[in-house]
Parts: sequence; C-alpha cells; structure tokens
Amino acid sequence: MTADRGLFIGRFQPFHHGHLEAVKRLAQQHDELIVGIGSANVSHTAANPFTAGERLEMISAALRDARVANALLVPIPDVGRNAIWVAHVTSLVPRFALVHTNNPLAARLFGEAGHKVAPVPFTDREHYEGTRIRAAIAANDPAWRERVPKAVADLIAHLDGPARLRDLARAASETIVEGSG
Amino acid sequence: MTADRGLFIGRFQPFHHGHLEAVKRLAQQHDELIVGIGSANVSHTAANPFTAGERLEMISAALRDARVANALLVPIPDVGRNAIWVAHVTSLVPRFALVHTNNPLAARLFGEAGHKVAPVPFTDREHYEGTRIRAAIAANDPAWRERVPKAVADLIAHLDGPARLRDLARAASETIVEGSG
Amino acid sequence: MTADRGLFIGRFQPFHHGHLEAVKRLAQQHDELIVGIGSANVSHTAANPFTAGERLEMISAALRDARVANALLVPIPDVGRNAIWVAHVTSLVPRFALVHTNNPLAARLFGEAGHKVAPVPFTDREHYEGTRIRAAIAANDPAWRERVPKAVADLIAHLDGPARLRDLARAASETIVEGSG
Amino acid sequence: MTADRGLFIGRFQPFHHGHLEAVKRLAQQHDELIVGIGSANVSHTAANPFTAGERLEMISAALRDARVANALLVPIPDVGRNAIWVAHVTSLVPRFALVHTNNPLAARLFGEAGHKVAPVPFTDREHYEGTRIRAAIAANDPAWRERVPKAVADLIAHLDGPARLRDLARAASETIVEGSG
Amino acid sequence: MTADRGLFIGRFQPFHHGHLEAVKRLAQQHDELIVGIGSANVSHTAANPFTAGERLEMISAALRDARVANALLVPIPDVGRNAIWVAHVTSLVPRFALVHTNNPLAARLFGEAGHKVAPVPFTDREHYEGTRIRAAIAANDPAWRERVPKAVADLIAHLDGPARLRDLARAASETIVEGSG
Amino acid sequence: MTADRGLFIGRFQPFHHGHLEAVKRLAQQHDELIVGIGSANVSHTAANPFTAGERLEMISAALRDARVANALLVPIPDVGRNAIWVAHVTSLVPRFALVHTNNPLAARLFGEAGHKVAPVPFTDREHYEGTRIRAAIAANDPAWRERVPKAVADLIAHLDGPARLRDLARAASETIVEGSG
Repeated sequence: MTADRGLFIGRFQPFHHGHLEAVKRLAQQHDELIVGIGSANVSHTAANPFTAGERLEMISAALRDARVANALLVPIPDVGRNAIWVAHVTSLVPRFALVHTNNPLAARLFGEAGHKVAPVPFTDREHYEGTRIRAAIAANDPAWRERVPKAVADLIAHLDGPARLRDLARAASETIVEGSG
Repeated sequence: MTADRGLFIGRFQPFHHGHLEAVKRLAQQHDELIVGIGSANVSHTAANPFTAGERLEMISAALRDARVANALLVPIPDVGRNAIWVAHVTSLVPRFALVHTNNPLAARLFGEAGHKVAPVPFTDREHYEGTRIRAAIAANDPAWRERVPKAVADLIAHLDGPARLRDLARAASETIVEGSG
Repeated sequence: MTADRGLFIGRFQPFHHGHLEAVKRLAQQHDELIVGIGSANVSHTAANPFTAGERLEMISAALRDARVANALLVPIPDVGRNAIWVAHVTSLVPRFALVHTNNPLAARLFGEAGHKVAPVPFTDREHYEGTRIRAAIAANDPAWRERVPKAVADLIAHLDGPARLRDLARAASETIVEGSG
Repeated sequence: MTADRGLFIGRFQPFHHGHLEAVKRLAQQHDELIVGIGSANVSHTAANPFTAGERLEMISAALRDARVANALLVPIPDVGRNAIWVAHVTSLVPRFALVHTNNPLAARLFGEAGHKVAPVPFTDREHYEGTRIRAAIAANDPAWRERVPKAVADLIAHLDGPARLRDLARAASETIVEGSG
Repeated sequence: MTADRGLFIGRFQPFHHGHLEAVKRLAQQHDELIVGIGSANVSHTAANPFTAGERLEMISAALRDARVANALLVPIPDVGRNAIWVAHVTSLVPRFALVHTNNPLAARLFGEAGHKVAPVPFTDREHYEGTRIRAAIAANDPAWRERVPKAVADLIAHLDGPARLRDLARAASETIVEGSG
Repeated sequence: MTADRGLFIGRFQPFHHGHLEAVKRLAQQHDELIVGIGSANVSHTAANPFTAGERLEMISAALRDARVANALLVPIPDVGRNAIWVAHVTSLVPRFALVHTNNPLAARLFGEAGHKVAPVPFTDREHYEGTRIRAAIAANDPAWRERVPKAVADLIAHLDGPARLRDLARAASETIVEGSG
C-alpha cells in the first residue's frame, strides 16, 4: 500500500516554466510527487512576494492545465533551525522514498537524516530565472508573461502583481515591516 | 478566473466516514473545496494522534477512492492567537467565497473578519465520532475499521496505530513530552 | 528627572468599577501610574474575550471620563516563561519604583528580581467580579452594565459583546481554534 | 461613539523633532492619534538602541511638554510575518479610520487589508535623521541634543546613551548576542 | 572513538534520592550518562518550581558528593511539538546508544525515530515522590529534607524554597503570570 | 555554600586551542567555570556548522584530556531579544559572580543588569581563528588539525566535517533552508 513518492521543495516565487518542466518530469518518475511550497510563512518581500495561498492557487491551476494529476501540493513554513528541519518537513508530508533537490544544504540535511537524495534538472537556471522574472514583473516588462504558465500569469495580473512587486522593491529591506519612521 | 471555492477545516484525527460524507457534499457545492487540516503541528497526543503528513496521506487516498477530484488539501498549523487566526488561514489557502464550520469560535472569527459562514452537516455527530473512534482504536475494538474509509484503515494499521494510541492514552497528559521523571 | 511611577498590571476582561477605583487610588499615590494590560495577545476566549486594542479603547475612555490624567496604558503580551517575565515587562514600560499586585506569583517574580511590591486594594473581589461580569454579559443579564464604567458598557455593546461572549462560552475550550471537526 | 482616530507607526530610535512635528500635525487632524512604537521587542542594536519602555518614556515626556493631549502610545512588537502584520497591529490598538505612513510596504499591507492610507509629512528626511542622530550620539557630537526634544535629550543622557550607542556600534553585528567567541 | 552513552531525561523538580539512585545505576552501565534536564524553560509553577540553572546546580552538587564522575548534564527546553521532539533532543546532546525512560510517550517518540529504549528503575515511584516532596516543601514539613540529597536540601533552603513553593501553590494556576486582576 | 563561579560564553564553532587556553586560565580563577555554548539552536550554516550536541561532545572530550575538572558546560539557545537575554542566560545556568567576555554587547547587557564583567584573554584573536579554521576545514587544508585539540579534530573527522563545511559554503546563504528553487 505504500506508494512510491518523490519530494520536491521550492519557493516558487513565482512558479515558472522551469518549475513546471521539472514537476512534469519528476511526476512521471513516481506514483505521486509531493511538491513542497517552502517558506510558506514568508510573503510581501522583494524575493518572496506571494503568500503560500497565492502560490498554491498558481501551481494548482498550472498543473491542472498541464494535466499533471499525481502531484500533491503542501505548504511548508520555515522552522528557523536547520537541525530539526528534516523532522519538520517529514511531519508535514506523506512518506516519500526520494528527495529531489540541488540545494547543497537541503541535500546535506536530508542525507544526514538518512534519506536518499537525487538532483532536480535545471535548478540553477531556475534560480536565476526566479530573480529575473520578479525583476521583470516589477519593471512591467511584458516578457515576464512568457516565462510563467498562463494560469500563473493570469493570477499575478489579477492580484495586481506588478504594483505589489514595485512597492516591495521600493521598501528599504526585505524583512518584516518594523515601523515606518 | 476566480473559481468559487469553499473552505472546510477539521482536525481529522482520524478522517472518518462522517468527514468523507461532508467533503463529498461540500465538494459538489463548489468549483473547488479547500480542506484545511487543522492543528497541523500537533501529533502524538491522545486527542491528536496523527501527524499532518499522515492525515494528508489518509485523506488523499480516501478522496481518490471516493473519486472526489476537486478538493485541495492544506495543512494549517495552529498560530496560538485567536485575533490573527483568520489572517493566518487566509495567507495559507487560495481565495475562497464561503467557510463551512459548526464551531462557534471559528464562525465568529471568520464572521468578524467579514467572511460568509455556513454550517457543515453532522459536525456534532462527527465530533463525538472522533473521540469514540480513537478510543476504539486504542482498545483494539475491531469496530473502528468500519467507521473510517478503507484507505484510512489500511494506513492506520500500517502505522501500527492501535499501539501508538495505547501508548498515548497511557502517557500522563496530552501535552508535549516534558521529561519523564 | 525620574518621576515616581507605580506599575499595576491586570487583564481587564473587561475593565470594571473595581479596576477603576483601584486605578484612581493608585494614580493619586504616584506621579504617574503605568497600567499594564496583561495577556495582550489573548482574545476571543471565554475568560479573555476582548483584544488588547479593545481593552485599551475601553480603559482609555473610562479614565478620560474619570479625569485620571496621569495613567499610561501599556499592552503586555504573555512571554510564556516565568523566569524572564519581569525582564520582559520592564523592557516594555518606563522605569517604575513600585509594583502593585495581589497575585502571589507576580509578587514573587518581581520580588526575586529586586523590585518593591505592594498590594492592590480589593483585588480578590475584583477577580471574582471579572468572572461574574463575563457570565452576566453572556447571559444578557442587564446587571452587567452597572458593574462597568459607562464608556466600557457602551463599547461592549457597540462590539456586540453579548453575542461574542455567548459564542465563546459555546466553544468547547478557551484555547485557540484548532479545526472544527 | 466611535472617535475618528489616526494611526502613525514609527520606531522612534530616538524620537526627534521631525517625529514631534509630524505627531503634532497629525494629532490636530484626528480626535485621537494612535502612535505605534514599532519593533517594540528590539533594543540594544546600533539601529535600535532603546527599549520600548525607554521610547515610551521619551515620547510621553516630549508630548507632555508639547501639550499634545490626544495621542495614545502603543508598543507594537514585530510579528515576523508580513501576511499577518495588519491583523497583529489592529488587535493591539483601538479602531482607527486612517493610517499615516510613507513606508511602501506598510502602505501596501494596510491597503491590501482594506484600510485607508495617507502620507506622513517629511518621513524621508526623518529616516535619514534617525541614522544621523544615532551616529552623532555615538560620536559624542553635542549637535544631537538639538535634534531631539529636551525631555528626550535628558532621558538619553540619564540612560548613559552615548556609551550605550558606542558599545553597540563596536559590536560586530546588530543582531542578538550569540556568544562572544 | 565513540563512547557508549546512555540518555536519561527528567524534570528533577527537585532532584531526589530516587533520581540519584537511578543515575548512579545507569552511570555504571555506560561510559557516560547524559542527564537531560527537561522543561528547561519552565520554572516558578507549582509543578516546576525551579529554574534549569537551579536544577543544574542541585544535580551537579549532588553528583559530586556521590562521586558520579561520568554524567553530563544538559538542559533541554520544551519544543512544543511532539513530531520534532526527538530531533530537538538529539541536536542538543552528544551521540548516545540507548535511551532510558518509563514515559510511554517518550519511549514511543524515540522508538519511532529508530532509537533503542530501555526502562529506568523505579520511575513510577519517583514520579509520585516528586509531587509529594514538593507538597512537603510547601507545607514546611521537615521530612522533605530526607528525601533529597544533602546538597539539594541546602540549595533549596538557600533559595528560600519553602516560601517560593507556598507562593506558587497559592497562585491560581501553574501557567505563566498573565496579569493579576 | 555558594561557590565562586565564573561564566564564559562562546559559540565554539569549533572549540580551538585559543578557547582551551582561555578555559584553562579562567577555570583556575574560579571554584567552577560555567562554559556557555551560545547559539545552541544554530547549526549547519557556514559560520555555525556544528550542533550544540556536537560542540558539547567536542568540548567535553577536550577538557577531559586537558584535565580541566571544574568546568560545567551549558548549551544556551538564542532568545532573539537583547533586552531579555541576560534573564534568559541566568535562568539556564547556576549562580555566578563574574562574567568573562570581550563582546561589547554582551558586556553592556550584563553590565546594565548589574553583573560584574571582566575580559577574556585573546578573544579577538580567537574570533579570527574561528573563521580561519572553518575555512581551512572546508578547504581540506590539513593545518586546521593543529589549531584544535586532538579530541576535537578526531570528532570533526568522524562527523565528516570537511564535507559538511564544503556543502555549507556552497549553500547560497547561511540562513535556514527555505526551499531549493
């Protein structure tokens, strides 16, 4: 009864074509792919503009359009302490057989805890895409719409994303608001 | 592009037929039903024996078997402060039009925050069922298997649930382990 | 330049005539009286129905009506750890010379930290009054209006207080909402 | 019975003449001005040298000297999560009709939550003044005394502020002490 | 180079002869015995009167007098979440081969995480002794001095323990101070 | 009965000869030396690679080899708020008469709380050694083995320390893992 599951964690700020291609590929390798939405507690910063709920809505719509039916989306809040991060993640998701990550710290933490770890294709490229896509959205450069699935683009537009990202870029820092003067 | 979504939050310790019937009915009333798995941070207590990941795995399997295809499962950790609970929940889930709850506090908090609230059928009965089902599992009374969907029963058996619940019942309190002497 | 200040901490759920009399008396004994609104993070429970902001609004109006001009209101969130509670409080309020409390734990903690402690008149009576006044509000017993200053009664009515307290009394426990099923 | 209130949040490290002028002006526009003392939990860093209690004492004295009688001071601790910050703030302060802020993130968060937002005069200049005043205090440059109200200057001197700011500037980082070697 | 270590966790409120006998016996079974001082963040409650530092001082002195030289004392704060408790503990203590506990929840959590678990002699009796010893201290019943090692008795007397326990017993609840009115 | 104790807090990432010499010297000045292992909750970052448990194991072995018998090791988690840091530390350790630190912030916080503070010899040099030693370990430069006590070197090797430090150096930032894409 134990399905073969893979785990893939990202921040998806926003979910773009690089992520979608990785999810499609990984979903074919497993009975079920758990897609962890990392830093679920973080939003409204220049590097993390969207809430977990908004990202869940984006990814859910994009996977429906792409007919990926065996992905399970799970928001994962930060726990603030590396030594217990793996126990935190495993308490929030179904059992899994393999972790896909290119992040050296995530790979090390899962590895030290005894999990099998495999790479994700193209993650480095994706990392830069995330930063560039956010910059393009903030700059109102229409090119950003082509970098993300249509459902994601529509939701970002609906949420008035470009204005939000511009405000966040203008805010002095990416941390929590801590008083304005 | 805004789907009509409903939100239904429960602890699902475990997910039983009463929950399943409610989810089926509510899922028919909405384009999509968000099923919030409450107290996602709590596990291994007599009243909350299963982790969020275990509950996610149970519910996901039961809904697949019941061919409920428009439910979105979202673990929701406790935030420990009623005045910000609604903001916490709404940051973790997609936008929704209606909250289904029979809990007077949940109804009040969502109502004060301006959300529309409607009842869930049979929740009182469900509440008592949860307590009775946990007692039956701990007592090894085979009747519990009929109270939950087959996939849930199989997973609980696989997790050695009866032994876990017996241990938790023996533990002096339902709070966190705080030293043993 | 160091004023003689006294510190008086209560939860004020709600602020009633017993509290008002104590504040008036203590305010006469000091250049300035710091009124700490304890458990500022707790609200929407049967024992703690009102937010810190609502209590601040109540007390501020009641003291204005009573022409108490030398009280400084300060919300004090719980810190969850007795050994650091005094350091927490002293970091949030101006310097003070004397703490007024009848609570044996508060008196001990301030005393162990080297502060001078004096009693508050009538606190035991006040304690029971708080519980009785909340019960009267929930029961729609009009007597509660006479137990609190007029500005407090008006604000509670404006906030639909009786309905809120009834909902909270019906909620199974006084803890945070943790899922409804 | 609902007074027209405005909300103005700052860190006030320290409270200077720019802040005082803004408070005076805003207090004239409202029945009552709520002055939120942001990052109330932060102190003893180069950018945030004073505790919430010390800032409360400074501002309270300065407003008394300036005969501003309709301001309500409220310490507001950081909550560490932008998506719930507005719910956090509104639970701590009385109801308000208008938020005054020049911080783009604060403006966005209050705006997304449905609050009316208006600018504060001179905040940009004030921002730089805060940094420069702290540098002047640390450098023992007597000019700093003219930049802050007399009561603030007296309290900073009484607290041995120049020595504290020098120590904080020498400390390697502005975060919490995390061991000394 | 890996020593054989055992782990024994207790709250030790206070450390009594039952604890001492268990530590002596377990210390003989291992190269080194890790003694975890549980609920290190809790103090000044009727059930947990002493701080972690006070308990560390007690136990350290008692073990020195008893010539137990291979015990390592480690305060362990509560983490508030059963699913990550074992990861939390293992991050705070040296590697160990065997956990000694009679607490069914602790045994289950360590067991589910793959650790070997063995019983502690006499723990049930010890549990009741803890409660009775605290009652005796609060009641000024001189019998308590015989129930604890001499160094513990001396420190409790030095700390004015009987008065502290009386105050804590009088305090309405064992939770944190939350305002006195 | 009150021993003369000194308190020395460091992060000890890792514990090197500079630390060992300081501990030896300070241990001679006091009946007992409390060695606080700071940032006990932080691990698996480039600047803080080792867990508190690993550091405890290192230091314990090194002090045994160096025949320092009067040191008491205490892990001290960060508390995230400077104004309560001293109360936090003092609740976790036995009473002490003198704090040894060269950190200007730690010295100020202990001083403002009324503690006597004295310098530690060579701490500046030690600070740079910590950074250099971690770099040497990550680079597989064998020189690092000479900079730390033999027991520390053996444990770091056993833990596969060079590989861990390389992974941590490659990870984009030193903060918690927050999703990999």
